[in-house]
Amino acid sequence: MATDQARSDADEADTYDRLERRVERISNVGNAAGILQWDQEVVMPDEGTPARAQQLSTLSSISHELLTADETGDLLDELEEGELADDQAAVVRELRRQYDRETSVPQELVEEISATASNAHPKWKRAKEEDDFERFAPTLEKLVELRREYAEQIDPDAEPYAVLFSEYEPYIDLETAERVLERLREELVPLIDAIQESDADLETDAFAGEFEDDDQEALARDVLDSLGYDWDRGRLDTAPHPFSSGTQFDARVTTRFEEDDLLGSITSTIHEFGHANYTLGLPDDGYGTPLGEARDLSVHESQSRLWENHVGRSRPFWEHFLPIARERFPELADVSPEAAYEAANQVYDDNLIRVEADELTYHLHIVIRFEIERALINGELEVSEVPEVWNDKYEAYLGVRPETDAEGCLQDIHWSHGDFGYFPTYSLGSVLAAQLYAAAADDLGEFDAQIREGEFDELNGWLRENVHRHGKRYVTPDLIERATGEGLTADHFLEYVTSKYGDLYDLEDY
Amino acid sequence: MATDQARSDADEADTYDRLERRVERISNVGNAAGILQWDQEVVMPDEGTPARAQQLSTLSSISHELLTADETGDLLDELEEGELADDQAAVVRELRRQYDRETSVPQELVEEISATASNAHPKWKRAKEEDDFERFAPTLEKLVELRREYAEQIDPDAEPYAVLFSEYEPYIDLETAERVLERLREELVPLIDAIQESDADLETDAFAGEFEDDDQEALARDVLDSLGYDWDRGRLDTAPHPFSSGTQFDARVTTRFEEDDLLGSITSTIHEFGHANYTLGLPDDGYGTPLGEARDLSVHESQSRLWENHVGRSRPFWEHFLPIARERFPELADVSPEAAYEAANQVYDDNLIRVEADELTYHLHIVIRFEIERALINGELEVSEVPEVWNDKYEAYLGVRPETDAEGCLQDIHWSHGDFGYFPTYSLGSVLAAQLYAAAADDLGEFDAQIREGEFDELNGWLRENVHRHGKRYVTPDLIERATGEGLTADHFLEYVTSKYGDLYDLEDY
Repeated sequence: MATDQARSDADEADTYDRLERRVERISNVGNAAGILQWDQEVVMPDEGTPARAQQLSTLSSISHELLTADETGDLLDELEEGELADDQAAVVRELRRQYDRETSVPQELVEEISATASNAHPKWKRAKEEDDFERFAPTLEKLVELRREYAEQIDPDAEPYAVLFSEYEPYIDLETAERVLERLREELVPLIDAIQESDADLETDAFAGEFEDDDQEALARDVLDSLGYDWDRGRLDTAPHPFSSGTQFDARVTTRFEEDDLLGSITSTIHEFGHANYTLGLPDDGYGTPLGEARDLSVHESQSRLWENHVGRSRPFWEHFLPIARERFPELADVSPEAAYEAANQVYDDNLIRVEADELTYHLHIVIRFEIERALINGELEVSEVPEVWNDKYEAYLGVRPETDAEGCLQDIHWSHGDFGYFPTYSLGSVLAAQLYAAAADDLGEFDAQIREGEFDELNGWLRENVHRHGKRYVTPDLIERATGEGLTADHFLEYVTSKYGDLYDLEDY
Repeated sequence: MATDQARSDADEADTYDRLERRVERISNVGNAAGILQWDQEVVMPDEGTPARAQQLSTLSSISHELLTADETGDLLDELEEGELADDQAAVVRELRRQYDRETSVPQELVEEISATASNAHPKWKRAKEEDDFERFAPTLEKLVELRREYAEQIDPDAEPYAVLFSEYEPYIDLETAERVLERLREELVPLIDAIQESDADLETDAFAGEFEDDDQEALARDVLDSLGYDWDRGRLDTAPHPFSSGTQFDARVTTRFEEDDLLGSITSTIHEFGHANYTLGLPDDGYGTPLGEARDLSVHESQSRLWENHVGRSRPFWEHFLPIARERFPELADVSPEAAYEAANQVYDDNLIRVEADELTYHLHIVIRFEIERALINGELEVSEVPEVWNDKYEAYLGVRPETDAEGCLQDIHWSHGDFGYFPTYSLGSVLAAQLYAAAADDLGEFDAQIREGEFDELNGWLRENVHRHGKRYVTPDLIERATGEGLTADHFLEYVTSKYGDLYDLEDY
């Protein structure tokens, strides 16, 4: 019997190895595609697109075939019947999820969505340029319909929008997301009202002026140096829409420079550092499997927002960083850390554009998109009604009404890509950032003094220990619970913004 | 009967389409790997190697599996029995060749060669640094043995070295290559002797001095502008060992800058332009199949050498380009076009290093390697004998004897990669460059006046028409015959160097 048991263990080890090799292959193909995408955004010559599109499409279909092959299913079936170590069980769990989703949707539907989205993108762009929603509407209708069908294929019994949301956030259920977003709306609408009515006079022009690209780039490198970015495993470049991508061996940052927006380049660089820093904290020996890959969008965004907002928009950060900035830009000599802090935290009372929003109004932009896309996908709202509903909600939640659809429901790229269910992860990331930052402060004491000295190792060590090194070992709620001692909650975020903005804007009731 | 015929035609079209999709897939995977390699050489952070190695190895094994799958063989069998259009027949011919080679070698042997070469590279590097051939010898023996076995697997009846040579130059037979190389040796040894004995006093210090990298880069861009490089489909970067890579949609150039070697950076940039320019001349609609891919190494090298030597080392080129160079480097104000021409064409009498050789002695460096690697692979020479044979040949052909193996048989990287049979393609490329240049001049008249004006369109148009646009449509001898009216011959090269150097060095008998 012992011999049989030993043989069965050996078979299982062999089965697991075969699964792991398959997982690594899929992962390497995906990481190769990641390099091709980075290249396309950052260095590819203009006319390289036709070849690049074919290369990416080939890698994507190879990856799909490897994942959905019968052998993958057989290996998963076999492994799920036996005993697995925790790490192995996590790899099997993640692959099973992907496998079930990808095998449940017919490849023709996937290709139709992809082709429709490819065509939708230029239509959306043109519609936005010409402020002509009608031009985009039929394509948007088609995309909504195809995505509803897609959700139906995956789980005919679930709310379609919940299925799509779980594409981006597989382990946080939609009820939790909804609870958080509703809470944000309920609490932030009156807070923003109070700010708009306050007489406080913030200094907002600390970074007014024109700043050369080359100097901005040097300063962006200073920012990354200062935060402890590992240049042996990364690099900084520019891209029209900044992003970060890569693996634990090579996690790159991009940023943008606009002559009249020095602050924007600094905060964007810190944000992307947060993403890259998470990637760099993933374990080297997990490379190629889910154990070496980042948890999903909300956790990723929690890392970028934690660094951008809790560090980069804090008073002690500006006490630390302003002298560095003055070395590059002597014209900042008369700016005080307090003025820099106020400029970095100004709440706009007439902004219509999500990507230009402050850290407070931002979430109402998200709530509006969440409510609209959910109703669209669930069949409770017609595409033709979107512009008016959009504008009404802006008026109700933010006190501003877009005058054009270009500044309204046409502003974001996501729907034109066929992405519905993505928006909530931005707000969940902010909420989680505040929760993690509070937990780190609980564990380690306040960081203000350290940040003032430009010491980020302890904070980063805490994030490495409690978040980064786990990769996808734990499902998201478990990861959050282990790191913070509680489930996902908006409490810490609301406490943070109430205290910060109550103070900044001298609000009586806050 | 007509119906049966129609059905059979339709089946054949379908079979060909299936083969074409497979070819395109393989090609796209290869091109994706090309981007990853460019990235690794040019922009990848230092510590990215472990992940990159896995990504490249995954793409390589996927490509191998797609190529050697039974389905590929079945499609080829079926298509070879039917009637094919010329273009289709060319695609089938190229794929058949690759298929037969890759299926004839056991995958374990391929992996053993790859693993041995990976380990050999650092050993070779260390041996070169420490001038210690013994350190590299056992690995070199192993690589020779493995490559001999590899050749045996592909064709047990052929000369092993011929089989390896055809890896790089599939359609030029080794006898032709040998004939050309022997002719070069016979004619160049006395010519170089005559030069070394001549009293001519060339001006060789036109570009002496120190030149800033930034200015050198600006000048490299001027060179590329001047030659008509298409920046919408390319870019210029630096790499320690300059190369060019990509596709007709995106063919990139790299170069290097050394403070005291302005001339080297210019000629290296022109050389790599020649490669990229060939790639850019491949037909867009052939992308993904052999019809849109460059013919092999010798033809590629003919393009780089034609631009580097026949254009870039010519008098009229320097008449055109020196004024441009003076804009960047005012210190060149007193340099005459003739002095620049002489500096660019100096024949060294004591150079031991292939990559630093002039356009004349270069070929004796190649002949020496060819003779030695051929004897090694064919079992006629022991690895332990290589250093002495190497040094003897240098003394006999070039009149110089290396004092160390670092400057002798350890100087090149190729053998450490397990590459035997590659070297001859460098000389064949030069020979073909001269042959093509002479044919173009026959067709179009002398280019001197055009080059003096910086007009390269007519020359490039001839190359596009006669070489580039054909991709791999014709086998190499046919391509050469169609373009030049004769088979590969050293005549034109020897005529060119005899006339050029006879004149430069006032040689009586030349």
